[in-house]
Amino acid sequence: MDLEAFVRDIPDFPKEGVIFKDVTPLLKDPLAFRESILQMSERARKIDFNIMVAPEARGFIFAAPLAYEMGKALVPVRKPGKLPYKTKEIEYELEYGKATLQMHVDAISNGDKVLIVDDILATGGTMEAIARIIEDSGGEVVGILCLAELGFLEPRKRLSGRRVETLITY
Amino acid sequence: MDLEAFVRDIPDFPKEGVIFKDVTPLLKDPLAFRESILQMSERARKIDFNIMVAPEARGFIFAAPLAYEMGKALVPVRKPGKLPYKTKEIEYELEYGKATLQMHVDAISNGDKVLIVDDILATGGTMEAIARIIEDSGGEVVGILCLAELGFLEPRKRLSGRRVETLITY
Repeated sequence: MDLEAFVRDIPDFPKEGVIFKDVTPLLKDPLAFRESILQMSERARKIDFNIMVAPEARGFIFAAPLAYEMGKALVPVRKPGKLPYKTKEIEYELEYGKATLQMHVDAISNGDKVLIVDDILATGGTMEAIARIIEDSGGEVVGILCLAELGFLEPRKRLSGRRVETLITY
Repeated sequence: MDLEAFVRDIPDFPKEGVIFKDVTPLLKDPLAFRESILQMSERARKIDFNIMVAPEARGFIFAAPLAYEMGKALVPVRKPGKLPYKTKEIEYELEYGKATLQMHVDAISNGDKVLIVDDILATGGTMEAIARIIEDSGGEVVGILCLAELGFLEPRKRLSGRRVETLITY
């Protein structure tokens, strides 16, 4: 199945000059969504991990079925003010300005092996920030798994030394 | 399995006097998460529907594995500015102030039978707004399915006439 056919280009979103990869047509097609989760779980099965970490909100859409299918723990990483318990946070640089992500302080323990999951891997900046907050909690980041990557933004350069798995490369 | 044991009370979140129901311990426990999805899918199987609609962000965590498990279409409802394609939106009243939700204009068609899925059913205000935007698109809302409901806020009164299924009642 050609999963790429279910990802729609949206020009000039979220800002002029950017072509956004919209996965909602894939979510709308039960067979394509099923196939994408099965292919992602095939990649994940080659990696030894016990916790899946996903950033809100689209990361949840792929990580939750994967965690369910594979019987792994699911840990959400969210924007400030969303997680109700005590959090630790990380501030990181975006192309313009800064962003902050939070994780519950009891989410990751020493020795946890963590796979980070999201829909689209762009610059790798968010993934790198999530990896750092996991490592700061004593966890080991054993891989990054996404449906697709924007290869022209060179996320693998930024994430060099980390294991990166994706199904589609743009 | 006592799913309630995996939902944690967080006092005074998001504001003083509110006890927030935190599902992250349930997500962290693979067997409890699996059991919650299986029990929700048992409820869903009794309902004839073809599309599952979920509000961001925690709704995605329960709706995505359910849509995957059951082979149904998944449609996200999001806060303004998050969905990249053309959207329709609905403004609705919260306890204090107003909120707006958006859905893609091509997400729901005439005759679609829709099950709305979220984690916690509180006042029912958000569910009622989502039901109206679906109906405005020609879809039929055949049910509302959540992990838990805050019975003391009387969401079923507000959603009277609608089918509401939940696994836990507070």
